[in-house]
This record gives sequence, C-alpha cells and structure tokens, in this order.
Amino acid sequence: MIQFCLVGAGFIGPVHAANLAAHTGARLAWVVDLNLPAAKALADRYGARAGSDLAAALADPAVDAVIICTPPRTHSPIIEATARAGKAIFCEKPIDLDMAKVDACGRILQQTRTPFFVGFNRRFDPTHRALHDAIRAGEIGRPEMLILSSRDPEISPPDYVAAMPYGIFYDTMIHDFDMVRWLLQDEPVEIFARTACMLDAKENPHRDPDTAMVVLKMAGGALVHINSSFRAVYGYDQRIEAFGEKGMLISGNQQATTVERHGRDGIRRDPLLYFFIDRYTQSYRRELDAFVQAIAANAAPPIGFDDGRRALMIAEAGVQSAKTGVPVALSA
Amino acid sequence: MIQFCLVGAGFIGPVHAANLAAHTGARLAWVVDLNLPAAKALADRYGARAGSDLAAALADPAVDAVIICTPPRTHSPIIEATARAGKAIFCEKPIDLDMAKVDACGRILQQTRTPFFVGFNRRFDPTHRALHDAIRAGEIGRPEMLILSSRDPEISPPDYVAAMPYGIFYDTMIHDFDMVRWLLQDEPVEIFARTACMLDAKENPHRDPDTAMVVLKMAGGALVHINSSFRAVYGYDQRIEAFGEKGMLISGNQQATTVERHGRDGIRRDPLLYFFIDRYTQSYRRELDAFVQAIAANAAPPIGFDDGRRALMIAEAGVQSAKTGVPVALSA
Amino acid sequence: MIQFCLVGAGFIGPVHAANLAAHTGARLAWVVDLNLPAAKALADRYGARAGSDLAAALADPAVDAVIICTPPRTHSPIIEATARAGKAIFCEKPIDLDMAKVDACGRILQQTRTPFFVGFNRRFDPTHRALHDAIRAGEIGRPEMLILSSRDPEISPPDYVAAMPYGIFYDTMIHDFDMVRWLLQDEPVEIFARTACMLDAKENPHRDPDTAMVVLKMAGGALVHINSSFRAVYGYDQRIEAFGEKGMLISGNQQATTVERHGRDGIRRDPLLYFFIDRYTQSYRRELDAFVQAIAANAAPPIGFDDGRRALMIAEAGVQSAKTGVPVALSA
Amino acid sequence: MIQFCLVGAGFIGPVHAANLAAHTGARLAWVVDLNLPAAKALADRYGARAGSDLAAALADPAVDAVIICTPPRTHSPIIEATARAGKAIFCEKPIDLDMAKVDACGRILQQTRTPFFVGFNRRFDPTHRALHDAIRAGEIGRPEMLILSSRDPEISPPDYVAAMPYGIFYDTMIHDFDMVRWLLQDEPVEIFARTACMLDAKENPHRDPDTAMVVLKMAGGALVHINSSFRAVYGYDQRIEAFGEKGMLISGNQQATTVERHGRDGIRRDPLLYFFIDRYTQSYRRELDAFVQAIAANAAPPIGFDDGRRALMIAEAGVQSAKTGVPVALSA
Repeated sequence: MIQFCLVGAGFIGPVHAANLAAHTGARLAWVVDLNLPAAKALADRYGARAGSDLAAALADPAVDAVIICTPPRTHSPIIEATARAGKAIFCEKPIDLDMAKVDACGRILQQTRTPFFVGFNRRFDPTHRALHDAIRAGEIGRPEMLILSSRDPEISPPDYVAAMPYGIFYDTMIHDFDMVRWLLQDEPVEIFARTACMLDAKENPHRDPDTAMVVLKMAGGALVHINSSFRAVYGYDQRIEAFGEKGMLISGNQQATTVERHGRDGIRRDPLLYFFIDRYTQSYRRELDAFVQAIAANAAPPIGFDDGRRALMIAEAGVQSAKTGVPVALSA
Repeated sequence: MIQFCLVGAGFIGPVHAANLAAHTGARLAWVVDLNLPAAKALADRYGARAGSDLAAALADPAVDAVIICTPPRTHSPIIEATARAGKAIFCEKPIDLDMAKVDACGRILQQTRTPFFVGFNRRFDPTHRALHDAIRAGEIGRPEMLILSSRDPEISPPDYVAAMPYGIFYDTMIHDFDMVRWLLQDEPVEIFARTACMLDAKENPHRDPDTAMVVLKMAGGALVHINSSFRAVYGYDQRIEAFGEKGMLISGNQQATTVERHGRDGIRRDPLLYFFIDRYTQSYRRELDAFVQAIAANAAPPIGFDDGRRALMIAEAGVQSAKTGVPVALSA
Repeated sequence: MIQFCLVGAGFIGPVHAANLAAHTGARLAWVVDLNLPAAKALADRYGARAGSDLAAALADPAVDAVIICTPPRTHSPIIEATARAGKAIFCEKPIDLDMAKVDACGRILQQTRTPFFVGFNRRFDPTHRALHDAIRAGEIGRPEMLILSSRDPEISPPDYVAAMPYGIFYDTMIHDFDMVRWLLQDEPVEIFARTACMLDAKENPHRDPDTAMVVLKMAGGALVHINSSFRAVYGYDQRIEAFGEKGMLISGNQQATTVERHGRDGIRRDPLLYFFIDRYTQSYRRELDAFVQAIAANAAPPIGFDDGRRALMIAEAGVQSAKTGVPVALSA
Repeated sequence: MIQFCLVGAGFIGPVHAANLAAHTGARLAWVVDLNLPAAKALADRYGARAGSDLAAALADPAVDAVIICTPPRTHSPIIEATARAGKAIFCEKPIDLDMAKVDACGRILQQTRTPFFVGFNRRFDPTHRALHDAIRAGEIGRPEMLILSSRDPEISPPDYVAAMPYGIFYDTMIHDFDMVRWLLQDEPVEIFARTACMLDAKENPHRDPDTAMVVLKMAGGALVHINSSFRAVYGYDQRIEAFGEKGMLISGNQQATTVERHGRDGIRRDPLLYFFIDRYTQSYRRELDAFVQAIAANAAPPIGFDDGRRALMIAEAGVQSAKTGVPVALSA
C-alpha cells in the first residue's frame, strides 16, 4: 500500500484524490495546500490529514510518495523538498517554466535518486495508446507525417493566463510535444511556430496567444504539424493522425453516447466530450496506476524527468520562433 | 444501336429517357403516352417521335425494344402487344397486380420467346451489389438473418394509393422481396405481416396501410425481417443488414456530401438523399445498360419474368397475412 | 451506509461486489454461496463475511439489503426468505422462470412491503437512456416502429442452456421486452416469434433455439421487431432504433477506442465491445446506485416487481408463439 | 451550342472530351495534339475533327472556345495564339510555371479581352462547395484556422516529375492554395514550407520533394496548414477542415459504397476513392458546365486569370521557403 501526500487541493487535485481513493494499492494520507480550508475539505472526503505546511507532511514517515499539482512556478521548491525527504514524486506537467530551475531539480533528483514521474496523462489514454502501439507495431511502416489537433473548449481565467504567458505552448501544446516524442520515438531538430489572438478582449484581456500552428522537423526526417486553440466551442478536440508509407492511423475524438438523431435537417450525434476531465478520465486513473506499480516494484516510473525537460525545451523554442518569426533549431 | 420505344411519359419515364439519351449503345426512337402532349414534350427533348397509339410505334421496324413505365394495371395488355410485335421488353415492377394476368403474360412471353426484363433496379445499386457480392463470396458464411429497412419519405398521392390498395406490399416491399431472393438465393416458405395506419387522415385519406413489419422464413432456414413506412421525414431510408455465422454486412444509406458540422449542440451531417430518384440514379443507369447489353448480345436479360412473378406472389401472401393476422405458407 | 448481502458468488456476482466496494453509500457485508470457497474468495477481496447458509446472513441485523444473483430457478425461495427477514431486494432478471412462483413471490412482497428491484441494467446504460429521454421529450413525435438487435457473441455452456430451455426468450430477449415497455411506455397486445437453430451440434448440443425474430404489436399501435442470436462473432451487438412521425433515433454499439486504420483494403475501426460485462460496465454501476439511493431515501426502487413479471409474461407468450407458429395475444 | 477545340489528347483530355459529349449546350468540334494518332483516336470517339496543327483549328470559325490540357510549359504560346484568334479559353492549372510568361499571357488576354477560365475543379466538388457555402453563410463565424490534407495515392512518372521540379507545389498544392483563397476570401501574407523525400529512389529517382508541410498566414489573421504527399497508399486523401469562433466544418473523403463489414477483427469500410478522376468526376462536369454557361451568357468565367496567377505566386513563394528554410513574405 503506497501512501500519498497530495500537494495542491485545487484544479486537478481532486481528480488524483478520487483515483487514489479507488486504487487498491494506494492510500491518500495527506492533503497539503496553502489554503488550509481547501486542503481540509478534500482531505475529509477521503479520511486523510490536512495541512498547509508541506514540511510536516514530508516528516510523516508513513508517506511514500507526493503528488504535486500546484501551479507550475511553485513546482521546483516542492520537488527539492520532497526529494530531500526521500519520497517518490508524481509531478504535474510542466516540471517548471524556467529551464534553469528545471535543471537544478534534475541535479537534486539525480543526487537523491528520487523516483520521478511527469504527468503526461495522454500517454495512458486507451485510444492514443492504441495509435502508439499500432505505429510501434509497424502498421503504417515508417511514420512520415504526424498531425495533432489540440484544442481546448475555453481559455483559462485571466489571472491564470497572466501567470503563464505563452501558456498555449507551456501548458497545452507541451502535451503534444510529449506525444510527438512518444509516438515517433524521435526528437525534433527544428520548430516553426505562428500564433494569433483570435479571442476578443473580454475573453483574452492579456492578449496572450490563444491560437497557434506549429511545424516540427524530426531528426529522422518526419514532419509534424500541431494546431491549437483556446476556444473550440464544440468541445475538447484532441485528434492525432499518423501518416506513413503503409497507411494512416487516426486517434479520434470521443462522445458521451453513440445516439444518432435523424431529422429533416440531417443526422446529429453528440457533441465531443467537453474538456480534459471528461475525455481523460481513464488516462488519469491509468497513469496513477502506472506510478503506483512502478513505486511498488521499485522500478523507474514510465515517464521520467528527461521527458518533462525535453517537452519544456521544445515549448521554449516554439515560443522563441513565435516571437522571432523564424524557425528555431533544436538539438536532438 | 438498340432503338427504344418508351411507353409512359410520366413518373419514371423521363429518367429512362435521359439514360437512353446518354447511352452510347441505345437510342430513344419513340415516346408513347395516352397523354399526347406529355409524350411530345418528352420526345422532343431527345429527338424522338411521339404518339398516343402504341400500335403505330410497335409497327415501326426500327424499334427493337419497349420500356413499359405506365401504371401497373395497364402492363399486361402492353406486354402482350409488344410480345406479339416481336420486341424485347423492359417492364417496370410489378409485372401486374393480378396473378392471373401475370400468368397469362408469362404464357405469351414463352410462346413468343420474348426477351423480358423486370426493373428491379436495386440489384444494380453499387452498395447493395457490393453486399450481394460479399455474401456470395462467403464473407459472412451462411447468412442467418436479413434485416431490411425500406422507408419512403412520403406517401403517394391519394388517387395513386386508391388505384393500388396495399401498395406498401405491391409497390414498395416488392423491391425488398426481390432483394431477399437475390441476396439469399433462396425462396421464402412463410410470411407473417402486420400493418398499421400511422399517417393522419389528410395524408392517408384511404386508410391504406402506410406502415408494415414482415417476417419471412426461408426454405434454407434463414429468418428475414422487413420494415416499411410511407413517412420517413429524414429521407429515403434504404438499409440492408445481413447477419451470418462469420459476421455482419450492412448496406447503408447515402448523403449528398460528406461535410461534418461541429457545433455546441453536436455533430451534424447531411440528411439522407431524399428519394429513390436521388438514391438510385446510378442503379437506373446500370439496369438499362444491363438490358441493352443483354439484347445486343442476344442473351437473356439478368432479371426475368419468374423473378417478377415470385416477388408478386410474396407480396400477395403478405397482404393475406396482414388481413388474416396469421402466417401464410409459400411454396418454395 | 446501506449494508449488503450478496447471494451467488459466480457470474455477475463479482461485478456487483466490485461496484458495492466502490460505492460511497454502500458496503458489502456478506457473500453467501452454496459453494463456500467461492463465497470466501469473493468476500475476502472486500473484507466481507462469507457463508453458505443464507439464514445466517439474513439474521445479521446489520444487513439492509440482499442482491440475488443465483441461477433463475433458485430465485423464489431466496426472495421469500429475504422478504420475511425484512431486507430490501435487488434481484437479477428473470424473477423466476415459472409464472406461478413469480406470482407467489409477488404476494409475499406485497404482504411484507419489501422494496424490490429487478436488475434490468440496460435502462441505466447512458446511450439507451439518452434514446429513452429523446423519445419521452418528443423528438420523434409518436414512436411508430421500434427495431432491436440483441445478439450475444457466444452461447452459454450446455448445462446452463439445458437448465433454461428457450433461454433466448427468458434470459436474453427478456431485456428487450423490458426495453420495449420502458421506451414506449406501452404494453404489447400480440407477439409473433420464429426461431432457428443455426449453431452446429457442438456449440448447441441441446438444439435449443439460438436465433430468433419477434414482432410485437403494442396497445397504442406501434410495431416492434426484435432479432436475437447467440453467435455474433463480431461482438456484443446491442442496437435500438426508434422510428416516429418526426424522425429516427438510433442507440448504437460501442467500441474500445476511436482509432481508424486506413490501408489499401479500406478503413478499419475497432470491433464492438465483446460482451455485456464490457458494454454495460457503467449501467451495472448506475443501477446499483439507483437502488442504493432509493433504499436510502425510503423510496420505491425504479424498476419494480411488476416490471419483472410483465417481461416474463411476454417471454412466455413468445415461446408459445415460437412453438405453435401463430401469433399469441397478450393482455395489455 | 458552344463548339470546342480540345488541345492535348492525353491525361485529363479524355475526361473533358466525355463531359463535352454529354453536355447539352456544348460540342467537341476539334481535338488537337502533336501526336496525331492520339488526337484522332479521341476525336473519332465523339465525331470531332483531329489535327496536329493548332492554327488550323483556330482558323475554323465554328470553334468558340479552346480547352488547354497540354503540359504546363506549353500553355503560354497556346494561350497567346488562342487569344489572338478570338476564342474563349478554358486552361488547366497551372497557367504556366514561369511567372514572366504568365504575366505576358495576362497582358495579351487583357488586350484581346479574351474570356479566360482556370480549371481549379475542386471549387465545383459538391462537398468542398458545401463547406465553402457554410463558411460564407457564417456557420462558424470568423474562420480562424484552415487545415488541408492533400495527398495523392502515387507519384507521377519520372519524366513528368523531371519536367516540373517542386511539382508538389506547382501541380498539387496549387489546388490547395486556390482553395484557401476561395474558402477564406483572403490572401496570404506569409508562407513557410518544409519538404522531404520519403519515397525510395525507385519511386522517386529525381529526389524531388514528395512530402510537404506548409503554414500560411493570411492578411486577415487566419492561420492555414497544408500537408501533402505523393504516396497515400489508402487512396486519394482530400480533406479540408475549417475552424472558427462558432464551430468547425469538415469536408471529408469519399468511398465507392457505404458497406460496413463487421468481423472478429473490427469494422471495415471501403477504401477511399483511388484518385482525382474517381473523386472529382462531378467537379469536372460542373466546372465545364460553369464555363459553358458563362460563355453562352457572355459573362466572365467564375475563375479568372488573376486566380490562376495568385495561386502560382503562392506556389513560387512556397518553393522559395522550402529551399531557404525561412518564411517568405507575400504581398496581399
């Protein structure tokens, strides 16, 4: 039974807490949040202890692992403290927004030999996983082009956006950068990016890019396109298309039911599932299970520090390309 | 070059006329209709002669073949006259509504050795044909169940309905009875039918059945279901599902475009093609071509008199079952 | 917290046990099975008590409710004992195979005012539920035809089949009979059924019907078709199509992923989910939740004794029609 | 009745000849090809005159219009001669490969006031047209992103490729550049392109780019992605996706039938139509009809010289970007 401390009671925290509660090999022991009432509310639901002081939780010898789901800029000190306390780490992406801090984390993790997992949950989505397995099994031969649609139904609140400029790279497409590396088992050597502000001033007061198109060139020669938006009114649009010498694979969207409605104006099916909580329910459960199994088996978690660092590096280069208007080289 | 006389300028007549005009091996020589102006209007469009007297056209030695597309109750005298004149016959279904008349036609056709074709056009629809070929190729092993949806978007005008009571059997499902025989290469030994009047008195003043469900038992053991309606507001609904020991084949509906529209309320595609003229455009062309090729090659047309007679026999038994409420046996 | 005793550790028992374990308002207290090791194995997984004697469990005052998932022929004595012990009942369908016993159960349930629920889980499937809600909301106006495909991927083991002749009616289509009543909010007044043995002697040694077609006439006039098979090699085929004056609704099948594979030979998608455990995962969870909520609120469970009795009555009449070859009247 | 001279009996020539023959308002009078036997073979099929000397045909006062379907590098002298002869011009794309020659043609066309049409047939495809109409009708509000997949099933023969380096821009994506302008009613201000040689040396001996990804920035702000390949083994893959503030529209691919095949390994549908002849049958007919109608009505053809010139200009800039590795600006 792996005992967890969850840091960050908001946003994705409750999802991880519920999955921990339902997991037969894990237990939620602590919830830590600077906002103590929020920590308490979540902890009480699952019979866990609550606190606003991470040190107290880390001092609890019962705690085996920490799930970090606080805002990205707070990750590195939490990673450092947790690593020094000798607990395994499940960290939401991105590791941090500042590459220097990420590298500092990397050094500490290495020194302390801390098991570290980055929450790129999409790798655990059954449909994306089936696409991955089909590519790896050679169904389309050599992959030549990859096209990813990565669109959110709505933009985050203004203060969240303000805290992470170019979040469409750091927070959203970072998932796609990871998917590209995972699906192609290859590294990009160049990124070109173009962004736009399509939302109006009310929805996007900080005029941070809310729309983006990216072209990546991979070391092995494959070409990759990613498009992203913060306003797909029809739901969470998450498609991946892999084109190769022997065919094409498409990982499509998902809907709540399979009902078809035939009327005078056509055939209507359900809208797409609305957002990541709806679409990636299973992938959150499965990534947690993968982490628990790795820790229980004393094995390396299946997505490591370098995966998190690489994805951030691509995001950084993408932002640079978007700002300068020219392609940016990446070392494979 | 096979020269045709078309009898019946209304309804499906213009479709056949246009297909004749576009066919490189055929020519429309005559249009005959009791309504002479209608005959003229159609004939003029294609440089053909027009008349209201069938005898005159049949006396024209240039005429090789006659297409009969008048109302069903007028078919038998036209068939007889045409056979006696030594011309090949392309006859719209049903051959006639009266089995005694049909049998009389059969005797004359046999005596005169007249090439005879019944216009069960659906056998020439590419999608139904692909289903047929897949069954015959053994893709689903022995076919065990067949389910046909046969729904028109609207009911015929009241006088048309009055002229052919139980038209849902004689005019509509007669196509399905033919499809069942063709797809399974087997004959039914029993039919059970239930009908209903679902349309209101304004749409269906004669209270002729406008909705029907049928179960057939085939000599070889397969079970067949057909459902039919005269009011599918969403378009011409023509599906066939073949279930067998090794799988299932579905011949689905068709739409004008493949456009998908994603909005807040779901994903919308085009409605179904509206009616048989829209859906079976290709099958009308191909059945004519099959007839022309057979005549040109002095071969038997691919759908013969017995096919037309058998389908009528099943329709008759279906009407009897619908009226008596019990299954009716058919001799295979 | 509602405490449960589960009777019958095999087959569907473990599904209910797992759902009870995950439910925040319920607890699995007892597992009873004549096969004590089986009861123990299941009970141990969830920290429950195990026994082979139902009386002992029913004597436990902590037990609030009993889930009956033993073979159908054993249901009535368990129902009676449970009702006399004053516990609420969640009973798998069918209530029993013998109408006299069912009626005896009904009298006892009424005398003891025992809350009783029949496990017609399909009513809780999100897709079928969406179809139901759309019909009830008037999306297709008056429903005129209902077509249900109800096909299992494989036949049950020979001894299971031997214990329940005509199980395709009593065990499989009984679900569809319930769906028809629920979707149309109407009762059938006539049933016609035809069956066949399509499986070979090895798969179906008792030559019990493995294939069936049914036509129902409803009191309100709607026509219903059900087709069923015990060998859909392509997976669990569970479709419902509702046709009405304003359109058509289809509740379609489900697949594990949305991956599309484009190759030279066409476009391939996943096969259907294999069987009911795969397809109806959510509906089992939701039906349990509905029962728990009803018991907790002291309200009548949403599917009652009469629903179970009616479905059995239709199944009985269907078997009679299949045996006699003529339609059988049902009192609405 | 508009009388045509067709120049170029190979490749797409026979398609235009057949459409002319079937058109009630047009007639094929001449077929001209340097290869006289080829001209004769095609001309004989439709009762037209054949020649290897364009001047003779242009001297025929019966000829109203000329369809140019020779290789691109031969277009400009034919355009000039035809314009000087006072005949209307239907010219296959691209107008020419050399912008200076295109501009020279433009001057002559203007001087001679010659009606000029460029054969961007995709504008007449019913599905793309429906997408266009939906965008123009405001169904998705302001279009923000456009994604085009433009993939051929096979590469052209080596000598064809050798005659037109970077043909993936000049011959294939030039269609997409036109679609972008037509769908968005806007001009690009920047293009970025990356290409690759994915085919092996046997298929692509000249190592001309056979794979490409493009990003366009439009004057109005929209972002556009095009991806293209010369080897989609699964058929002619021609999709357009328009994303906007109110939703998304997708113009999908097409298949020969709607048959679904359900087996143990999944659900299989037909492959895509194989190539442009199969997919764009209707659009070739409709573009000819649009041209005939314009000429008959003395109106300007619906796709003019400037449309052809603009598309070439974008292709040229794309090639430059692909060669230099940086984005290239375009004047809107």
